[in-house]
Amino acid sequence: MIKAIDIKGKKLFLLDQRLLPTELQYVECSSWQDVAQAIRKMVVRGAPAIGAAAAYALAMAATALQKMPPSQFFAGLADAANELKATRPTAVNLMWAIDRMLNVARMQEGKTGAELEKILWAEAEKIATEDIAVNKKISDFGAELIPKQARILTHCNTGALATVGYGTALGIIRRAVEQGKRISVFADETRPYLQGARLTTWEMLQENIPVTLIADNMAGFLMQQGRVDLILVGADRIAANGDVANKIGTYSLAVLAKAHQIPFYVAAPISTFDFTLRDGSQIPIEERDEEELTHFAGTRIAPAGISCYNPAFDITPAALITAIITEKGVVREPSRERLLCLREG
Amino acid sequence: MIKAIDIKGKKLFLLDQRLLPTELQYVECSSWQDVAQAIRKMVVRGAPAIGAAAAYALAMAATALQKMPPSQFFAGLADAANELKATRPTAVNLMWAIDRMLNVARMQEGKTGAELEKILWAEAEKIATEDIAVNKKISDFGAELIPKQARILTHCNTGALATVGYGTALGIIRRAVEQGKRISVFADETRPYLQGARLTTWEMLQENIPVTLIADNMAGFLMQQGRVDLILVGADRIAANGDVANKIGTYSLAVLAKAHQIPFYVAAPISTFDFTLRDGSQIPIEERDEEELTHFAGTRIAPAGISCYNPAFDITPAALITAIITEKGVVREPSRERLLCLREG
Repeated sequence: MIKAIDIKGKKLFLLDQRLLPTELQYVECSSWQDVAQAIRKMVVRGAPAIGAAAAYALAMAATALQKMPPSQFFAGLADAANELKATRPTAVNLMWAIDRMLNVARMQEGKTGAELEKILWAEAEKIATEDIAVNKKISDFGAELIPKQARILTHCNTGALATVGYGTALGIIRRAVEQGKRISVFADETRPYLQGARLTTWEMLQENIPVTLIADNMAGFLMQQGRVDLILVGADRIAANGDVANKIGTYSLAVLAKAHQIPFYVAAPISTFDFTLRDGSQIPIEERDEEELTHFAGTRIAPAGISCYNPAFDITPAALITAIITEKGVVREPSRERLLCLREG
Repeated sequence: MIKAIDIKGKKLFLLDQRLLPTELQYVECSSWQDVAQAIRKMVVRGAPAIGAAAAYALAMAATALQKMPPSQFFAGLADAANELKATRPTAVNLMWAIDRMLNVARMQEGKTGAELEKILWAEAEKIATEDIAVNKKISDFGAELIPKQARILTHCNTGALATVGYGTALGIIRRAVEQGKRISVFADETRPYLQGARLTTWEMLQENIPVTLIADNMAGFLMQQGRVDLILVGADRIAANGDVANKIGTYSLAVLAKAHQIPFYVAAPISTFDFTLRDGSQIPIEERDEEELTHFAGTRIAPAGISCYNPAFDITPAALITAIITEKGVVREPSRERLLCLREG
């Protein structure tokens, strides 16, 4: 399976997801600043993938800082952490991975810079390795919910490209196919960034999983025709009550699913949960550049002088979600109480 | 106001809507075959506009046939009519305009080819002139439904470009603005053909009506935030019970409008109604080329080898429609009975 994130020596190589599916090219990152830029520019995207990339970025910061005295080492690490956290505001896995790295460093405060550098590289490796294991667990739990024959609608990309490997929602589809289930996938193209058209279709094609591309505005018509058995999406941040921030368009799908009585599943690791937020209204929604809507591959498609609204995510209330699938199990009809049990369990 | 359809001598000049908003260029049509090709390729689009273009195409056919004996004249006219009808299957205004032209010719069966040619040109002119008058009436009726201040979401393009002039849903917006109402417009970009991004925004900009472009999948999130006061769309065919075929994505908007208790209005001339069809399930839905989804301005955006589903229209059940606005008045909660009254009235 293709690697979205690759390490060679102390350099991070990120598959440039802006060029897929026509070009397969890696961006070499030699510093944490390179990684921050790559996250900002969406060379790498997908909540779990940017979390792991940021962890490696902090390890790279530690390499650069290792000869500094402790106070400067920690100040430099904090600076890098803050700048990395600011690259994308919605996906909480980014904050989670960075805080985990900082905590590991702080717990070892007596150590030399060189020792801390080793510890931080090891922790980044651990985050990356764990992500794959977590995705496989999510996939095992999720596949149990998939009937023997299913036409699954998905949005954005939640596959190997969005994670360190295997994927969350697409991981579940992979696992169901491995189990011999007859699966076909409808992939929303996912405007404006086209993660569905460019990435999800490409991943499915690599593994010969039947996939049909649609424009986002066709999903409702498909449901009306009875051609969708279930909807399966990922998440960028989940509030304590189960409200889900995910790629823009997810909310509309959830409303349509409800209207057509189609199960609506969200697949995400525990690191996507933000128990500090009461509900979805507290999740910051990133707004991206107008150019994503006014231009296409450098060509102007909308007249100069108009306004655009370009939120990258939206909020789906817990009440519209049939179940959230995590590495610790499946939470049906998610609520504050059920999610707390999950965290404790 | 820009003319989508222009006549010079016996040639039809169609504004090439594929090139807007970056290029303003007309395609010269010297024969009915040229017009058929232009409709097929979407040089001209919008139900009322293609109806008028087809009427002119039949007049052009009459010019080419005028020296033929009556039997050959009528056979030739029927051939042209059949080919023109087959260019786009969903919009019924096309069939309506062609049948109207054929009926006029048949009612004058004693006349010479030269006389019939004059009659058909005059009828095409009449169809075009009537369209503008009809749109202004729709706009008058529709504007009464618009509050003094309104944020209106629209889909596709229903303006001067989609008609012979003024527009249907956008005509209502024009009229409301002329009446001094404070209107702002959200334009869905309308994938895959981007009529919203390319055409609606451009028309609004010409007249300084505030417009904000969004991707189709953002509409639900806007409604959730309480930022949409009403939705106003056009129609390509309306069945006897009030079910509406319109640009793909309309159905999803109607479901979302219902979920958020937002009024959902359809604006269309009587020529858009097809009283021969019991309900929307009988309306043929055009499926267009996969390339509209896999390519963008010649650039491949989705991997080779995937399947696509690309319906150009969908069906919105009458039950989701607050009112249909026609040149004969407004039909609230449209039903078979109420629409029959409209036809008779």
